[in-house]
Amino acid sequence: MNERRISQECLETMEFSKYFPIWNQLTPQQREMIAAKVTLQAVKKGTILHNDTDCTGLLLVKSGQLRTFILSNEGREVTIYRLFDRDLCLFSAPCVLHSIQFDIIVTAEKDTELWTIPADIYRQLMEQSAPVANYTNEIMASRFSEVMWLVEQVMWHSMDKRVAAFLLEEAAIAGTDCLHITHENIANHLGTHREVVTRMLRYFQNEGTVKLTRGIVELTNREKLAVLAGK
Amino acid sequence: MNERRISQECLETMEFSKYFPIWNQLTPQQREMIAAKVTLQAVKKGTILHNDTDCTGLLLVKSGQLRTFILSNEGREVTIYRLFDRDLCLFSAPCVLHSIQFDIIVTAEKDTELWTIPADIYRQLMEQSAPVANYTNEIMASRFSEVMWLVEQVMWHSMDKRVAAFLLEEAAIAGTDCLHITHENIANHLGTHREVVTRMLRYFQNEGTVKLTRGIVELTNREKLAVLAGK
Repeated sequence: MNERRISQECLETMEFSKYFPIWNQLTPQQREMIAAKVTLQAVKKGTILHNDTDCTGLLLVKSGQLRTFILSNEGREVTIYRLFDRDLCLFSAPCVLHSIQFDIIVTAEKDTELWTIPADIYRQLMEQSAPVANYTNEIMASRFSEVMWLVEQVMWHSMDKRVAAFLLEEAAIAGTDCLHITHENIANHLGTHREVVTRMLRYFQNEGTVKLTRGIVELTNREKLAVLAGK
Repeated sequence: MNERRISQECLETMEFSKYFPIWNQLTPQQREMIAAKVTLQAVKKGTILHNDTDCTGLLLVKSGQLRTFILSNEGREVTIYRLFDRDLCLFSAPCVLHSIQFDIIVTAEKDTELWTIPADIYRQLMEQSAPVANYTNEIMASRFSEVMWLVEQVMWHSMDKRVAAFLLEEAAIAGTDCLHITHENIANHLGTHREVVTRMLRYFQNEGTVKLTRGIVELTNREKLAVLAGK
């Protein structure tokens, strides 16, 4: 009878390969290189995963949700983009590319399982492999598009439109119209002050588009909210 | 006696190779592929080089100055980044990467000489060559850093700081304290209204940091302007 047991390491590699979309385009040697170095971890909601100019490594989400944001000198936050299952966070490894000249903070918005790919391993792969380099290009272009969307929102849209768009996006992400979120949280996503959000939400409540209770914003009229968001 | 004349095409290729920093990392076949297809042109200040979702191609500046900006539905502009000698514009060829989901407009801010690299040729090179793909990554990361700077400016800085920073940047680019620029131009760079800029400049003039004459903004106190810009 053959020995059929698979080692734990081998199992983990098999799993990682399903989440790393260009696995099949790596050479056996490159696969070994990355498999030997990635680490899987489970973190609780609220964990700060990256918070400085250091090279934490690339974060690949297995399940859960991450948020990246920037911080002003006065401590104000604004969300840059979110990461969901199978998304890769590049900017937690700024040393991978010389031209990355900004810092983001990455936190877990939900309990999250993720792999960390060490920056030096990833950089070696990028240098060797056109598929890895082009995958990186696609990821960066995708994040770039999200940031350009943010620029347009901030430049051209008033705060009422932005709050309405944010609530609709949150409902889509959470899959429910009942959002467990504080006014402070919303302000931190949008880069504004809590008071501004509270004023806006009260206006929305008077218009019948949301219902406010402690720690909860319930969307009661999506259509009207979509009109407000200018969609 | 040997024939020493070099063909015009050969001369142009030699020139292009000096401006394309990874030329030496291309195979002879790849060099031929790109050399046969790039076109050099001279355009006047004010020429619109790219203005839609089409794939104009990648623009490599030989000499001059380009400006990329986005436009709101109401016709307001905001500068995204500028391109100088040896800079490559990627986003004038959005079809090169699937994930580029935004449109920019590219115009010549000065009389400019530039090469256009057809998007399909560049995409083929990227797919084949890790050096080309990684060069593209560096360019995108560099533009990403500029856009993140813009986000920080717009999110955290008041308009007086932004106008002061813009004037200092312009003086650095132009190499003079005497800027030939209208209030409308400044507003279009910063995504605001002319009236806002005029009000700001008059305040600066009262503070003794600039002197205004028709079509000219002269910086008369850089140090004070730098303090205003928060530098």
